[in-house]
Parts: sequence; structure tokens; C-alpha cells
Amino acid sequence: MRLKARDLLGIEELDLQDIELILDTADGFLEVARRPIKKVPILRGRTVVNFFLEPSTRTRSSFEIAEKRLSADSVNLVGSGSSIVKGETLIDTGRNLEAMSPDIIVIRHSSSGAPHLLAHKLRSSIINAGDGFHEHPTQALLDAFTIRQKKERLEGLRVAIVGDIAHSRVARSNLLLLRKAGAEVTVCGPPTLIPPHIEKLGAHVTSNLAEAIEGADVIMMLRLQLERQKGGYFPSLREYFYYFGLTVEHVRRAKPDVIIMHPGPMNRGVEITSEVADGPYSVILEQVANGVAVRMAVLYLLLGGSADEEAA
Amino acid sequence: MRLKARDLLGIEELDLQDIELILDTADGFLEVARRPIKKVPILRGRTVVNFFLEPSTRTRSSFEIAEKRLSADSVNLVGSGSSIVKGETLIDTGRNLEAMSPDIIVIRHSSSGAPHLLAHKLRSSIINAGDGFHEHPTQALLDAFTIRQKKERLEGLRVAIVGDIAHSRVARSNLLLLRKAGAEVTVCGPPTLIPPHIEKLGAHVTSNLAEAIEGADVIMMLRLQLERQKGGYFPSLREYFYYFGLTVEHVRRAKPDVIIMHPGPMNRGVEITSEVADGPYSVILEQVANGVAVRMAVLYLLLGGSADEEAA
Amino acid sequence: MRLKARDLLGIEELDLQDIELILDTADGFLEVARRPIKKVPILRGRTVVNFFLEPSTRTRSSFEIAEKRLSADSVNLVGSGSSIVKGETLIDTGRNLEAMSPDIIVIRHSSSGAPHLLAHKLRSSIINAGDGFHEHPTQALLDAFTIRQKKERLEGLRVAIVGDIAHSRVARSNLLLLRKAGAEVTVCGPPTLIPPHIEKLGAHVTSNLAEAIEGADVIMMLRLQLERQKGGYFPSLREYFYYFGLTVEHVRRAKPDVIIMHPGPMNRGVEITSEVADGPYSVILEQVANGVAVRMAVLYLLLGGSADEEAA
Repeated sequence: MRLKARDLLGIEELDLQDIELILDTADGFLEVARRPIKKVPILRGRTVVNFFLEPSTRTRSSFEIAEKRLSADSVNLVGSGSSIVKGETLIDTGRNLEAMSPDIIVIRHSSSGAPHLLAHKLRSSIINAGDGFHEHPTQALLDAFTIRQKKERLEGLRVAIVGDIAHSRVARSNLLLLRKAGAEVTVCGPPTLIPPHIEKLGAHVTSNLAEAIEGADVIMMLRLQLERQKGGYFPSLREYFYYFGLTVEHVRRAKPDVIIMHPGPMNRGVEITSEVADGPYSVILEQVANGVAVRMAVLYLLLGGSADEEAA
Repeated sequence: MRLKARDLLGIEELDLQDIELILDTADGFLEVARRPIKKVPILRGRTVVNFFLEPSTRTRSSFEIAEKRLSADSVNLVGSGSSIVKGETLIDTGRNLEAMSPDIIVIRHSSSGAPHLLAHKLRSSIINAGDGFHEHPTQALLDAFTIRQKKERLEGLRVAIVGDIAHSRVARSNLLLLRKAGAEVTVCGPPTLIPPHIEKLGAHVTSNLAEAIEGADVIMMLRLQLERQKGGYFPSLREYFYYFGLTVEHVRRAKPDVIIMHPGPMNRGVEITSEVADGPYSVILEQVANGVAVRMAVLYLLLGGSADEEAA
Repeated sequence: MRLKARDLLGIEELDLQDIELILDTADGFLEVARRPIKKVPILRGRTVVNFFLEPSTRTRSSFEIAEKRLSADSVNLVGSGSSIVKGETLIDTGRNLEAMSPDIIVIRHSSSGAPHLLAHKLRSSIINAGDGFHEHPTQALLDAFTIRQKKERLEGLRVAIVGDIAHSRVARSNLLLLRKAGAEVTVCGPPTLIPPHIEKLGAHVTSNLAEAIEGADVIMMLRLQLERQKGGYFPSLREYFYYFGLTVEHVRRAKPDVIIMHPGPMNRGVEITSEVADGPYSVILEQVANGVAVRMAVLYLLLGGSADEEAA
């Protein structure tokens, strides 16, 4: 089986079969990280350009490690847009990169839709590693992988996504994926940080954390970007924590086998207490480990592989 | 056959035989980029340090991709001079790098002559990836490669180089190479941006774009560095475009099979219109693709290869 | 034989047998740099994260070259703390890195003890590449390797360490190592730059350069961090040079076969004259070359190797 598209632009473009193919393929790659020689020769001689126009440590290093474990050659282009492209248009930069014959370009960009524009203009495969407030599909895929690992299914689960929904590409990609997979999703945050019409994507909406968590199988906490406070979306960090910070007391309202997720980096004491982050329900570090396997799967599948043939 | 020198410091130091050896060798490497496994084992276990003291995306990534396609190990040292060397002299930094036994040091530096100084003091091979306003030899080589690919010769061609000639190491290296190869070169730009005595290098000089282009086989547009405007070299970008921006109307004055080149990044609407940049005569993206093959050839030849032995 | 610890946190944690094992192993790796193919397959498929939260060129590139010569996959995370970790705690960042299954994390951090904290919390092996004013163990090991190479022993040698002792992790690690190996150490600098109680670590202390150097087998000059002058530790660079700058006249007081060392980058004319730095007693560039071999040895030994088995 193959992915239907040549690019991974967003969860929106995937159907459930694609998603399952990626997760099944990632299953096979998970154990590579436990070998003494953490490397398979699958993408030897392939070139992947990591083109990160927004600061990123964890996503970029997760991709880079995934590429190296597949024996691909990685080239990193990082930095602010202005210094990299010297006023050049994104399409010109993309065409220039493509002229050097990379097989895949992994792009993070502050503008929503930037990866789509490149995909439209270039022949290389494009992976969206986060575009503006739009999508972050590999994050949603690794989150789904982690949920499936713990719950053995996605369908019918109750998932609460809590925090700054409006500015979160993580929330948006997760909502899209979970709805496609038949999960029930409640988004929760201050009314100022809930985007209008989000219920049209199939989400329940509430600003009451207790209500969101009630009976949840999965709680996904979002990072509060501290610079939002200047935007006047909420009065103070202390008040934010009071209404939306996840504490052990809240967790008791969820299912007894609830899992707690966070895409990182965490603000301990703002959106989540250390007790919860480091507690028995937390799968936060497993998300990171799974991220490498999921990205290996995406890289592999975009270059033409199928779930049957991956390295044993 | 081998290059006569151990370093690639500038076109000035090459003779026509060296230039042809590099271009012939690059011919053989061009197809590596079209293979599924874009890698030859020629420089396995060799270390190349990319030491870029000026910001660069395309030249650095072109070298890095070339190195990886030859299976060399690349180490990138990038950043501003001050943060890298903490007040150390360039020679001390170079000697320190050399003590780690790299085979080649690729250097970009804002001071003209910096690569020559290193070459004089170190045993490693030095490649000049751009020094001040002086030379950028691999750019001129890839430009010559592209012209030869399209025109099957350099000798006797009429080439117009248009823009800020005074501050362009690209213009200087190209002028030197094209004159050695027997092409006829006209440089064209505002009188304030033409260096004195350039005709001694064998260039015709004009500030009339129509005259420069008349009957040209090749038009090379240079990037206008927008910060030059503050220097008072020309009154406004609008006026610059009016006199020196390349439009479809201008191109009609050239030969019917003219090719249009630009080293990138382009300022669309300043030195070139989009109609021309994306039009049928433009070979701008082929220049980028050829750049990887030419740099592979240079790396290979400096490490002792010859045109006959390269990987098939 | 193996190292007793899983991490290399400081010289303090090593005993003499560990130190000798590292130096003996480095002996075997020294010649890799002289081969045409400078690569051994020992750490193929192992992942090393270079996590540098302080600017560094030479130490980072020395580690990166060492890793590549051992065929490991290197992932570089560099930059200021704030941009990398976005307010995350060091432990959270470390745990995130670890979740991606690196074999070794090489860390440089401005806080003393940061590598120890990571080692305490993580299962990966940690190498301290410099922490605050505390330790820089691979520098001391490469210095010891260089001394042993020249003098065939450490025991009984007279070593003078000169400069800003108080702010130097290089001085501290060297003092600890040399004392363990039975050398006699004199530290020398302005009284304001000698830390209190340093004699408890076994050092003689003096502010008289002539006295420190008298009869020395080894003189280690430290880099004067020029920003210290603002701290009022000494009146002027000129006065610093007058009292503590190493000149040919001073060197005459040492043993006739004295060796002069400096960890780099040098301030010529401040702590050392060019005549001495480039003179016959200087082993400064050999230190750099030995650094790669010593770091190869440390990486190799931490991943379970022993001195008998290294690549021939």
C-alpha cells in the first residue's frame, strides 16, 4: 500500500486509510531505536532538506534523527526567513532547493499554507513540519500513534484538548485526525482563545475544564505561549492556571486509565502541574520517542515504500 | 589529468586547461543527481570543513550536498566572524581547523584575499566560496558549465554582465573566466557601480543596457544588493529598474537563442522582470543544479582525482 | 578494561586507571587522522547529540569530527539557552532528547553542574564539554595526552598554569588531573583571579610569573577573557601583559625542554607573545590534533569499548 499523495501537507489531505498506513508503518520502525545499531539502509543516498524558518529544536532534531536512522543525507537550512532568503520569494527559494535534487523538503514556516504553495510548485515531496496556525500533521500522527499504543484504538475515545486552541496548529491537526478516526473531541480554553466556528470541525466546545475532562480517555494539554499574555487574551498566568492548569484533582474526573499528553515544551505550573506531568498517567516522553518512528514512517512512505517491505 | 594547484582560490589562478578539466569532470557528475541513490563513494572518509563567515544559504547548501553525494564527511562552521573566532586571528583559526586534519576547507569570508592567506599558511586544500568583492570561482565555473551546456562552446560568444559590477565577485570571476575562454564580455551598470580600469581585464564597458545586450548570446544579470541604495549609487530602485532592469523588450535585442542567467537570489521587479526570469530563455534553475555537479568536480579534483576515473 | 562510570562528568570522578585507559585508547586513534580514509566503523548506527548551550567552535567541531571518524551519527543542537528550550527546564529538555534514544549527549552549559544533573536523571551517557567555571574534562585529558606524548610521563613533572585561574574550567580540570597523576602544579595569576583555597586542591600559588615558571617542564597559558577587564580584576591589558604575558625571556627560566600549551583561542600580545606561541617549544596545534583522538577515545569507551579492541 502507498500513501495517496506525494506530500504530507496536513491531516486534512489524508483519509483514514492513509493515517492507518502511517501508524502501522511506524509500528515497524519503533524498535529500530532499541537496537544497538539504530540504522536501516532504506533511504541511503536520498537527500532530505530540513528547511526550518521558525525556531525549532525538538521537531527538527526528531526529523533529523529519523532521517539518519533511515540512512538518508540530511541538509539543514535553519534561521529566520529574512537572513536565509535575502528578500527572495518562497517559491524562488523552493525552486532553488529543488534544483539541487532533494528527494524531500521538510518545511516549517510561520505562514499558513507555505508548504502547500511549495508542493504546488515543486516536484520534490514536501512535509509540513508546522505552518502558522494551520497544521502540524506529524505531531497529530505521533499523538494518534501514542493513543493507539495505549488504548488499542482511536474510535469512540473521548479526547479533551485544553489550552490556546485558537493559535495552535497542534490542536487543529489533532482535531482533524481524531474526528476522521471516530473519536469524540472536546476543546477547552478561555473564550478568547477558542476560534469561531470550531464546532463545524466536529468539536464540542467548553470553557469549563471540569466539563471537558469528565470521563475523558485522553487529555491533551497545549503549551501556553507566554507571549500571548501581552495580547490581553487572559488577565494573568495565575488566573490562567487557576482555570485551565491541569492538576491531580482534575485528572480524577477523567477515566481511571486516562492518559495525559503534551506536545512540549511544557510550562510547568502554567498549563500543567509537575505532579501531573511526571505522574503515572503521563505519556509525554513516549510521545517524543514515538515521534521519531512516525517521522521515519512518513519519510519512508513518501519515497515510495509500503508497510510490507520495511526493514525487519 | 590533474589541476595544477592544490587550492581553488580564484579564476585568476586557473588556466584554460584547468577550467576545461573541471567542466569535463562536472559533466560526469551531473547524472548522479538523477539517480535514485544520489551518492558515489569517491570521498568516503574524507573530511570537508565548510567555514562560512558570511551568511550564505545556497552556496553552503550546494557545497554540502556536493560533499554528501561524494560520501565525504561535512562539518559546518557558520556564523559571524566575531562569535566564531573570539578575537583570534584568521590564521590561528585556520591552523586550528587544520590540526583536526580536514582534507579541504571551503571558506567564505568578507575580506578579499582571506582564502589566499589560508592557502599560504595551511597544508589543507582551500576552496574560495566567495571572498569580499574579489572572486567567487565556483560560481563562474558553474556559469561557464551552463553556457557550454547550452551553446557547446565559450569561445567567441558575446556575453553581457549587467548590474552592480563594482561590488560583485560574481562579475569579476565570470569576466576573468570568459576572457580566458575567448568570449567577448560587455559589462553594464550605472557609472557609479562600474569599477575603474575594468576594461584592462578585457571588458567592454557601457551604461546603456540596449547597447550591452545587442546581439548577446548570454545575458548575466547580477543581484542588486538593496543596501547599496543607501550608498547613493543610484537615485531609486524605480530608476534603477527603468535603466537596468531586464524586460522582455530588452531581450529582443539579443540573439534569438540568448540565454538569461542570474546567480540568485533574484529581486524580481528590480534587476529582472518575472516574465524574463520565468521565461523561455532563462536558465537560472539549471545554474543551481549545475552548481552541485561543478562543486563535486572541484572537490574531487582537489583530492587528487582525474577526469578519467570518476565514478560511472 | 572499561571506564568505571557511564558518563564523563569531570576529572574529579575519574581515577588514575580511568585516565590512563583513555590516554592509551587515544594513542590507538591518533593515526586515524593520518589515513587517507579517516574513518573507522566502530560507532556506526550510534547517535550522538551535541547539545551546546554556550558558543563554541573548536570544542564542538572537535567532537563532531571525532564522532564522524567513528562513523556515529551526529545531531547538533546549538544556540542560546532561551531560544532552544523556550523556558523549558534543563531536565525536561534532557528527557526529551533522551526519548529520541541518543547513545551519548555531549553538553556544554554555562551553569556548573548541568551535566551532572542530566547524568543523574537520564540513562544516556553524558559527556561534559565544559560547565560554567567548573570542569572541562576532555580539555584536561587532551592536555595530559600531549604532555605524555612529549615527556613520556606525567608523574613528577613541574607544571605552571598561568592566567585567570578563578574563571577557568580548563585550569580546574588540569589541576585535578595533574595532581592525580603525581605532577607538581603551580598556579599563577593576579591575586584577584586566583580562587580562594585553591591550594587545598594541591596547587602551589604565586602571583610572580618568574617564580611559577622557574624549572617548569610544562607551561600552560590560559586565555584571558577580555570581558574580565570590565570586572576590575586588573587595571589594563598592558599591565596584564607586563606581569603575566609569556615572553621568550620568561621561557628561559623554564627547563630547556619545556613545552608551552594554550587551550585556544589565543590573544596574541595579551597572555602570550607570537614569538612564544609560534616558537619551538609550543605544542599548541598538537593539542588540537590530539583533542580529536582523545574525544574519539572517550566516545568509544563510554559506549562499552576497551583499549584492546579498537580498530587497527
